[in-house]
Amino acid sequence: MKFTCDQEALNLNLGLVNRAVSARPTHPILSTVLINSVDGTISLTGFDLSLGIETSLEAEIEESGSLALPAKLLGEIIAKLPSGEVTIENESGDHLVTITSSSGRYQLRGLDTNEYPALPVIEEGQSHDLKIIDFVDGLRGSIESTSQDESKQVLTGVYLNSQPAMLEFAATDGHRLGIVEIYPEDQTQDENQEPARPFNVVIPAKSMRELDKMLGHSKATKISLQLEDGQVVFRFGNQRLTSRTLEGKYPDYRLLVPKNFARQLTLDRRQLLAALERIAVVSDATNLVKFVIDSNKQKLNVSVDNQTGNGIESLSIQVSGQSLNLAFNIKYLIDGLKILPTQDITISLNGPLEPVIIAPVGGVKMTYLIMPVQLRD
Amino acid sequence: MKFTCDQEALNLNLGLVNRAVSARPTHPILSTVLINSVDGTISLTGFDLSLGIETSLEAEIEESGSLALPAKLLGEIIAKLPSGEVTIENESGDHLVTITSSSGRYQLRGLDTNEYPALPVIEEGQSHDLKIIDFVDGLRGSIESTSQDESKQVLTGVYLNSQPAMLEFAATDGHRLGIVEIYPEDQTQDENQEPARPFNVVIPAKSMRELDKMLGHSKATKISLQLEDGQVVFRFGNQRLTSRTLEGKYPDYRLLVPKNFARQLTLDRRQLLAALERIAVVSDATNLVKFVIDSNKQKLNVSVDNQTGNGIESLSIQVSGQSLNLAFNIKYLIDGLKILPTQDITISLNGPLEPVIIAPVGGVKMTYLIMPVQLRD
Repeated sequence: MKFTCDQEALNLNLGLVNRAVSARPTHPILSTVLINSVDGTISLTGFDLSLGIETSLEAEIEESGSLALPAKLLGEIIAKLPSGEVTIENESGDHLVTITSSSGRYQLRGLDTNEYPALPVIEEGQSHDLKIIDFVDGLRGSIESTSQDESKQVLTGVYLNSQPAMLEFAATDGHRLGIVEIYPEDQTQDENQEPARPFNVVIPAKSMRELDKMLGHSKATKISLQLEDGQVVFRFGNQRLTSRTLEGKYPDYRLLVPKNFARQLTLDRRQLLAALERIAVVSDATNLVKFVIDSNKQKLNVSVDNQTGNGIESLSIQVSGQSLNLAFNIKYLIDGLKILPTQDITISLNGPLEPVIIAPVGGVKMTYLIMPVQLRD
Repeated sequence: MKFTCDQEALNLNLGLVNRAVSARPTHPILSTVLINSVDGTISLTGFDLSLGIETSLEAEIEESGSLALPAKLLGEIIAKLPSGEVTIENESGDHLVTITSSSGRYQLRGLDTNEYPALPVIEEGQSHDLKIIDFVDGLRGSIESTSQDESKQVLTGVYLNSQPAMLEFAATDGHRLGIVEIYPEDQTQDENQEPARPFNVVIPAKSMRELDKMLGHSKATKISLQLEDGQVVFRFGNQRLTSRTLEGKYPDYRLLVPKNFARQLTLDRRQLLAALERIAVVSDATNLVKFVIDSNKQKLNVSVDNQTGNGIESLSIQVSGQSLNLAFNIKYLIDGLKILPTQDITISLNGPLEPVIIAPVGGVKMTYLIMPVQLRD
């Protein structure tokens, strides 16, 4: 195999696929990146048997073929090379691979590409298309609420639940719940297309995070999703991400969301976030923050008081409904406020121990549900 | 005590003194920062019994006094406050201290300031003045060569050795040696000043690093140094750093520096540094890099060859003297090349196992000595 490509493009793409190469591979071949010549381009693949990433880049191919090279070492060398052309080549059947740039020459020992496991391919099955900006809204609005607890398997993923004309992203760790509703444009322009079949799937948070990073680098505008037998495949531009899906029934989270509220606050998101981030400095291991909602004065006081010290911040807000005192875990509140994309938000409440909904005013349809905690006296 | 000051100034100064507050204090009072009102300013002090830092800032003092507040917590709170004025106050004799900013109010519990240990003060003894730019040249050119091995006490510091009209900074860990000669301007303008007495002292690398950071923030142009009984005090602008000094006789490093050389290379520093940084990616635990100096072709090839892979880079250089092959520890070479401040450098050599000197062409008078290592066959 012999090809020449641009150092920057190779470096960028190696950075992407290396995210799917395990740091502690169970087999040596899983520590490599697979390089293939395909239709006048070079494809790069990283795969840890759960998450797979494939990208391609333009190259001048003198001799087609395939290579499996140590991913970390190759990435470090390419990253340090001067910009310009890089040539990678080996003699057929020889595992010693030579990398030549304007500055010098490097040689690495590759592995047998026949050992490289094939990425899952879904030949059949309907493809679901979405705008990337919608998909990213759904992903970012939900992923922070996934559980870190590996014993709660299904909760460590993001739930995608398609309904007629709507795709819902949801995640919950039992303390908070994030839901985003995406309304794709009507895609029935193509009369030959069969009507979209509903689907639901739970995708590991790790895979979704990598997808988020890749979409950030992509110039594509559409992403397609295909599902089959415990696998999901995303395609966009010249890139592909495959992931196993999580087994198990996702909890019926819609039951948690109250239909009516006795109180509603409208306020500036960044102002509350900044106040909570300051107050968090004096919070202790309980992470407890007290909210005193004063309906008469249209004020919200947030405060922390414990052995280390105490702090109080006061905000002018709009309140409908009666005054109320309640308490939250300050970390979950800060997480939610960081995710919400708008300047103004609403906080909807009933009693001091009933679910509270934080939502953006305008923009994407998003719900961040948080359970209050018992106030200490 | 009650004073009002600027949040940014307080934050910056707390950041500096907190570097001298131990993360694992042996006594609770050593986890605090001492705040004193002095002559219409506020002084801040951090002290871990070895390193002490004192700075001062402008403040509006309503009631003079002193406070000892938890350094880490105070630093975190002040860092997060909005810019503008901050007021810090307590009732006389009460350890509960209130911090008020435009956004909110915080309270912390301080400790008894009487317990705070006094920073070393040198009342007598001559003060040695230097330009800060000279001092920083000396510090940065030597500090990387200090030993990390705590069992070699005296080698973990930077040696300052004053001679008539010259101040020398030196450090060595046994593998490499950094020497910088500083020539202060003649300071005999003041006829009443007694002639400068020679001195020598070994200052812990940690203290010198903190000093480097502080000097980077300082607008002062002169630094003064005072010595006494195992203590050194540096003063510049409104800041002061005190440090214990290291005991023991510093080795006679000048004996290591060859007087004459059989070979000399002149080359572009950044070009060699970049080549070595690329080559270092394929180096193994031995860190060995081979130099092939070709006098006829006026070329230098640097290469690494081991089980992981191999790499070679070729540089055009000026060579006087005969061709030579030798080897170095690549890390020590890279360290040295990073320190040298000029574009062009010289590498002066004798045989393959004799000391090698790397020096800048022009600028500060600096010597980086490195021992070659045995070439493997």
